[in-house]
Amino acid sequence: MKRLRIGLLGCGTVGAGFVHLVNRERERIRGRYGIDLKLTRILVRDAEKERPGIDRALLTTRATEVVDGECEVIVEVVGGVHSAGAYVRRALLQGRDVVTANKALLAMRGRELFDLAARRGARVAFEASVCGGLPVIGAVRRGLAGDSIERITGILNGTTNYVLSRMEEGQSLASAVACAQELGFAEADATLDISGQDAAQKLTILAELAFDAPVRSVCVTGISDVTADDVARARADGGALRHVAEATRVTGGVALVVEPRVLSARDPLASIRDERNGVVIHGRAVGEIFLSGLGAGAMPTAAAVLSDVIAAAAAPGADGAPRG
Amino acid sequence: MKRLRIGLLGCGTVGAGFVHLVNRERERIRGRYGIDLKLTRILVRDAEKERPGIDRALLTTRATEVVDGECEVIVEVVGGVHSAGAYVRRALLQGRDVVTANKALLAMRGRELFDLAARRGARVAFEASVCGGLPVIGAVRRGLAGDSIERITGILNGTTNYVLSRMEEGQSLASAVACAQELGFAEADATLDISGQDAAQKLTILAELAFDAPVRSVCVTGISDVTADDVARARADGGALRHVAEATRVTGGVALVVEPRVLSARDPLASIRDERNGVVIHGRAVGEIFLSGLGAGAMPTAAAVLSDVIAAAAAPGADGAPRG
Repeated sequence: MKRLRIGLLGCGTVGAGFVHLVNRERERIRGRYGIDLKLTRILVRDAEKERPGIDRALLTTRATEVVDGECEVIVEVVGGVHSAGAYVRRALLQGRDVVTANKALLAMRGRELFDLAARRGARVAFEASVCGGLPVIGAVRRGLAGDSIERITGILNGTTNYVLSRMEEGQSLASAVACAQELGFAEADATLDISGQDAAQKLTILAELAFDAPVRSVCVTGISDVTADDVARARADGGALRHVAEATRVTGGVALVVEPRVLSARDPLASIRDERNGVVIHGRAVGEIFLSGLGAGAMPTAAAVLSDVIAAAAAPGADGAPRG
Repeated sequence: MKRLRIGLLGCGTVGAGFVHLVNRERERIRGRYGIDLKLTRILVRDAEKERPGIDRALLTTRATEVVDGECEVIVEVVGGVHSAGAYVRRALLQGRDVVTANKALLAMRGRELFDLAARRGARVAFEASVCGGLPVIGAVRRGLAGDSIERITGILNGTTNYVLSRMEEGQSLASAVACAQELGFAEADATLDISGQDAAQKLTILAELAFDAPVRSVCVTGISDVTADDVARARADGGALRHVAEATRVTGGVALVVEPRVLSARDPLASIRDERNGVVIHGRAVGEIFLSGLGAGAMPTAAAVLSDVIAAAAAPGADGAPRG
């Protein structure tokens, strides 16, 4: 049995989901992977807040108590770039593996953090940063490592897809956004989603992994100018209007585009409804691969984080064959 | 630069595709993963046969020259259970990593080979054995490691799906099978496909990975009794008749079913056409994940094999972050 001590940075929606998932899956993971998971310390902003099912003794408001504490892997789900970046840097400097769900951090400082990890012999895993529980990072990074990827086209933001789905039913943009906020899909400030910035960050992460080439152009258009008429017209023609993110190999690099786009009924992305995400990966040898699933939410995202934690701990044998 | 010498067992459709893919992707893989691929020896049945683009000096008709030769990984694409099993066993006994596309071997002797690998500190990788270029093994094994999988439902055989797709257009079963054989999707003897045995083997492999529980029941029905009328009726109702393989967690283990099934239009598997494969994975935390792509063919399968080869060679750093 391999002990794996986890220091957890952040205990919001995803962090709390992660604690619950670790508790729920602990026995299965012991039997299946021979890994004994143990949460050592949890960074919170308010140690006094009621957190059902979470051991109060683990809570701390000091990040260094988590990052410098005795553990094998640091899970970062605080979000944001500044503090989160400092914590991740500090963990990597100590040669510690980091699992993060933080797309903004990776999109802005990924290169620096990956380089630091490589120098320190540590790993940064980030399946949860793009499309939540849908293992698209793994598909690009490992599943298609043997192929040249030519294009990635996806619906990477569940909020705008939910909004467009409601607009298909006749709602206005404003009321659909309010609806998404009520259901918790969208933040109180939905600007990052609506503007396409969130999708662009995820696309940047995927493109870096897939193409290993410099970004030559970025063109981001949000959905704020999309009208109910536009959506209805696309539907009437048998297709669908979707907020599409696309990375294409071009001469000397990669071109990134995020835009509202009318898709034909034959396009697999046209079938993505509500808050789901979908990604089409075009490989030279494998052809077109399509993945879809829940792109956000506490439990799907927590599951992606936990999968990365297990992979970080897995011995060579565990990577090759299931045990037991 | 890490040198990775590959001994290749088999140079049929997939084997030859693998050699071409290695040659085509070599430079990218050097730059991207810091791995220098080298084919050391290739087992063939007939060393005299013309093989365009393949260095004759590498060919041998003796398996031991490949398995016992100097190399870090053995790629097995000879197929069949008896000889292939002996080669893989011999390689693992020497502690050598093995990458295989051989579903029959894994379905019948997987447990024994995985145990041997674990004892010898070697790895068996087999992404290509199920759904060709679609990285479903990786999704189950790594992407969803943190979640409890409850059900896997898929179209795992491209031949029967191609046949059913042609029957939707009015062809008879016999003529659709002949058509699939002409296009090379089906073997001259398509019994393994039509009977559901091929899908059952793939389902067994997925179920072992996903559930880590004993198989309690197996119920396999082929498509030989499906009539053009059955297919047309399903279409008229807005759905589709598909050859579905399903593994479900039941009390004390897993139940496997392969059968022709009428799917509603809302079922993502109803949209899988021609020789494509599709898999829906139901996870307790992640919900429903859907993957689809080309399930067979020389190049998609070769790409899955090569991805496994790269993963076998990848240093910890490469698993954590792209280089360069």
